[in-house]
Formats: sequence, C-alpha cells, structure tokens
Amino acid sequence: MGKDVENVEDQEPLVHSVANSARSSGVSEWKRKSVVTLALMLLTSSQGILIAWSKRAGTYDYSITTANFLVELLKCIISLVFLLQSWRREGVTEDNKLTTTLDEVKLYPIPAALYLIKNLLQYYIILYIDAPSYQILKNLNIISTGLLYRLFLQRRLNQIQWAAFILLALGCTTAQLNSSSDRVMQTPVEGWLMAIVMALLSGFAGVYTEVIMKKRLSRNVNVQNFWLYIFGIIFSIIAIVIQDFDVVMNRGFFHGYSMVTVCMIVNHALSGIAVSMVMKFADNIVKVYSTSVAMLLTAFLSMFLFGFQLTLPFFLGTMVVSVAVYLHSQGKGGK
Amino acid sequence: MGKDVENVEDQEPLVHSVANSARSSGVSEWKRKSVVTLALMLLTSSQGILIAWSKRAGTYDYSITTANFLVELLKCIISLVFLLQSWRREGVTEDNKLTTTLDEVKLYPIPAALYLIKNLLQYYIILYIDAPSYQILKNLNIISTGLLYRLFLQRRLNQIQWAAFILLALGCTTAQLNSSSDRVMQTPVEGWLMAIVMALLSGFAGVYTEVIMKKRLSRNVNVQNFWLYIFGIIFSIIAIVIQDFDVVMNRGFFHGYSMVTVCMIVNHALSGIAVSMVMKFADNIVKVYSTSVAMLLTAFLSMFLFGFQLTLPFFLGTMVVSVAVYLHSQGKGGK
Repeated sequence: MGKDVENVEDQEPLVHSVANSARSSGVSEWKRKSVVTLALMLLTSSQGILIAWSKRAGTYDYSITTANFLVELLKCIISLVFLLQSWRREGVTEDNKLTTTLDEVKLYPIPAALYLIKNLLQYYIILYIDAPSYQILKNLNIISTGLLYRLFLQRRLNQIQWAAFILLALGCTTAQLNSSSDRVMQTPVEGWLMAIVMALLSGFAGVYTEVIMKKRLSRNVNVQNFWLYIFGIIFSIIAIVIQDFDVVMNRGFFHGYSMVTVCMIVNHALSGIAVSMVMKFADNIVKVYSTSVAMLLTAFLSMFLFGFQLTLPFFLGTMVVSVAVYLHSQGKGGK
Repeated sequence: MGKDVENVEDQEPLVHSVANSARSSGVSEWKRKSVVTLALMLLTSSQGILIAWSKRAGTYDYSITTANFLVELLKCIISLVFLLQSWRREGVTEDNKLTTTLDEVKLYPIPAALYLIKNLLQYYIILYIDAPSYQILKNLNIISTGLLYRLFLQRRLNQIQWAAFILLALGCTTAQLNSSSDRVMQTPVEGWLMAIVMALLSGFAGVYTEVIMKKRLSRNVNVQNFWLYIFGIIFSIIAIVIQDFDVVMNRGFFHGYSMVTVCMIVNHALSGIAVSMVMKFADNIVKVYSTSVAMLLTAFLSMFLFGFQLTLPFFLGTMVVSVAVYLHSQGKGGK
C-alpha cells in the first residue's frame, strides 16, 4: 500500500491486455486519462442537473437504498458486458479472467463497507448539523482526500500543488455560500467531529479504491470493477435491510420510481464506472478536480436552464477554483 | 519611465546619502524594507480601527477636505524635521539639499492631481453605485495596480506571482462579502466604467509615485516627500475651494473636529509617509499586500474590540489571502 505506485508501474512486466497495449505509448495514455476525466466531469454535472430537475418535478419518495442497489447491479452488468467484449477480442488471459484469488479479492469489500458506514452516519449527522451547513462542511472531503492521498499513495504534490488544492476547497466553499451558510459557524463540536469523520471515511474509501485499482496495473479494469460492484451489491442489500425493510415490504421495491429516478440510476451507474476508470488511469486528485469543476459547471448550467441568478460568491469561488486548476497544472511542470 | 528600475539601481554611482549607505548591504536593505512594510501595515490597520471607533462615537460632521489639507501639511512638516536631522548629521549634500530643478520637480504635481480628480469623481460615483457595492468594487484597485505596475515599471511578476495577485483581489473581496454585497451584480454599465476609471486613477497615482521615488534612488526620500506634499497642500486647498468653501466660511475651518479626528489626521499623515517609504524602498506590490493584510487584521481586531462576529466569508477570504501571500513569496524563489 505504501509503495511508490509510479515505480511499480515501470517495473511490471508487460503482458497482453487492453490497459498495457494502450499504455505502451505516452500519448494514448494521456488521451485515455483525458477521456475518463472528461466523462466523469460531464456525468457529474448532468447528475447535478438531474437532481435539480427531480426536485423541481416534485420530490419522489422512492427509497434511496433500493436505488443504490440498482446502481450497483447496473454497474456490475455493464462491467460484464465490457468484459465479454475483451474476451471475444483477446480471449481469456491471466489479466482479464473473472476468477480470482482470496489474496486479490480480500481488499475489495473495504470501500463498499466504508460507504455503507458513511451513509448510515449521514442519518445521525443531521442531529448536529443543519442541511446548509452540511453542504458547506462536505468540502472537507477535498482536504481529507488530499491528506490521505499523500499518506497512503505517497505520490507527492509539490508546494504549489498543495496550495492549489487548498484553494480548490476554499473556492468550492465560497461558490456555495448563500444567506444561510453562516450558520455553519454555530455548528457544535460534535458536529465538526462527525463532519471530519465523514470526510475521512469518504477520503479513505476513495484512496483505498485507487490502491486496489493500481495494485496490479495490468489487471483488466472491468474484472476489478466486477468484484468491487459485487461487494457493492451485497452491502447495498444490507443497507436496504437496515434502513428501509418496512417500507419495501409494505409499499414494494419500486414505489415512488419515475422516469427521472431511472435517469438518475443510469447516470449514477455510469458516473461510478467513470470514477473507477479515473482511479485506474489517473488518480484521486484528478477525480477531486474533475468533480469540483463539474459542480461549478452544474451551477452555471442551472442559471440558463432554471433561471438561477449569478451570485457574487459563486463568481468569486469559480475564479478561485480556476486559479487553483491553473496552479495545479503549473505546479506539474515544476515537479 | 519605462526603464528597468533594478538595473538603474545597480549602475548608479554611489554618492553619500542615507539611502545609499544603507543599501550597501543586502541585509540592511531587507531590514529597512521590512520595517517600512510593517509600519505601513500597522498604521493601516489602526486606521481601520480609528474609523470604526469614530463611527461608533457618532458621526462627526467635519469637512474631509480640511482634514486632508491638515494631513498634507503635517506630512510636509514631518519631512522637514527628518530633513533637518540629516542636514545636522551629514551636512547639505547634492542628494539632501531642498532646492530642486524644474526638471526634477515637474512630475511631482501629477499624483496629487490624480488623487484630486479621484476624490471629486467619488461624489458622482454614488449616483451609479451604492455604498456596499462600491466597497466591493474598490478591490479592482488591486488588479489595476498590478496591471499598471507591469506596464510602467516593467518589473515582471512571474506566473505564480500573478496568480497570487489575482487571488489577493479575490480573497479580499470574499472577506468583505455580506448580505448586501450581491447588489453589486445589479451595478449598471456606467457604474462599472466609473469604478474601473477610479481604479485606474488610483493605480496610476501609486505607480507614478513609485516612478518618481525611484527615478533618482540616491535622492533623499524626505526631499522627495517634501515636494510631493507641497503639491498635496496646493491641491487640497483647491479641493477645499471647490467642495467645502461655503461650509468653511460659515462654520469655520475646524467645525466638527474632535479628539478622534485629530488621531485620524495624525494616523493618515504617518501612513502617507509610510506609503512613500514603501514606494522608495520596496514597491507597489508590497504596498498592496501590506494594506490588504492590514485590512484583514483590522477586521480581526474589530471582532475583539467591538464584538463583531467571525463570518464564514471572512474566514474563507482570509485563507485565500494567506495562500496568496505564501504563493507570492514562493514565486520569488522561482524567479
């Protein structure tokens, strides 16, 4: 876990796999990295638009746990379809075979378990933090991801890139400021502690996923996803039982579903796969930048689609994030 | 004006003057730069506290033009006192003699004239921009100073330092956000244009002062200040005649003065001298950083002194400014 991932990548023997044949050229590696990053950005921003759309269309009282289960299932199916294609193209190899060893698969339940704990905690955090304050405190995720990335992946950000990362968190928070944001200053200590624990859980899950995906770089990403999502399905069933057992029993699994819900499930599934791809071919830092820019893009699109007003904090925050993105790319050159 | 000031400094023959004897060592130059910068910062922050104090003690209806005149007069007297000391210490030399040539003195009225125009414009800008919006738009000064500094003094900021300077403006604006700030988005085009003109006037006056102070680096700073303030006195008399002639005639020159007014005049005079010193021994960029940090320091002190509440925008803005200061100093190393 503590190994230098870049070195591992260099020393690994080249075997026949989609990942490796593409990696053989630096340009195509850069291209794939850009494609997955862009895909994640577009999917995340359309996710925001879908949420705004579903809110405006009236709230649907479907259970989130059943939707999560369907997202995991759909991701698993999509991974299998991709896998079938690569079997047809290259035949079954050591890297794209579905069978696995306990040694390989034992880390896979951890991210799913972390997300389950995080989702359950979310129900208790509301007791200490109101919703607008929680929206603000969620930006702690950016800082925790940076710290854990530094700690577990040991790929260093230089000083300029660290400054840029802190600016990213500050800019995102500024962009979300509204008249009720100042309430966050009245958050009790318990609320702060819970928000920090949530941020650490979320950051840890992200960093852990990257560790898993990069542990054996030649391994086909769709096999890795398949096993990741299998545990996702198991943990989402546990969540249904814990949180929504009665509702599902009384009102049915699909109660409250609508066209928007279906769109959101498809979008979440595709976003999830895009996150995995970013973890495999880029890293957590790229993921955070990509989703942050997507958040701003969503807000910007919402102005046109739903007639939201451009606010000064949004403008200032967007500018700070832009400078952060610029500094991050500048910092790269100086590494 | 377009010459590289650093080169001029190196090529100039060393003559006997306070400036040069101090400059002979890099450490003492750095020390003097730090002292004047710190002095400016402390004076600017106590200025903010004085303004807050005078507001809480009830508004005094003294005329600002007469106070400005006294500030210029006091600055002139202080410069003469300093000058007397250096005459006593070193005798009258080419660099510290008070007599001047038309060629030397002809640029000196320009900053004072620019400030007069700016102060007169201030009366019209209120027609297009409300007070809280103007407070926000004043941060355009930071950007205009950076641009004009680049244009006229041709000392380059590197890319990191430019990013830092933009962040400084964004951070200062964020720190000043309050519930009425969003009105700035409704400012009409005329208001924006006037705010930009004001920012350019203010930036130009600052950059021009630096050009004057550095044109002949060996020249005693107190002689330069004396002539600068002589024109300040003349233009402030013009301002009294234009704006407050009737009030002064009917109610007297010192109507509405109080202890706070006197403190503010003394503070403004000392701050003005500190600005001149920063222009001579440091530069406009240092001045902007120093006064911006002072602004935040004032707000922070006000929380303790007047029981103001720490707001989230203030916290976020202060953090962005801190990162900007860090990046500026980091950028220096990479030059």
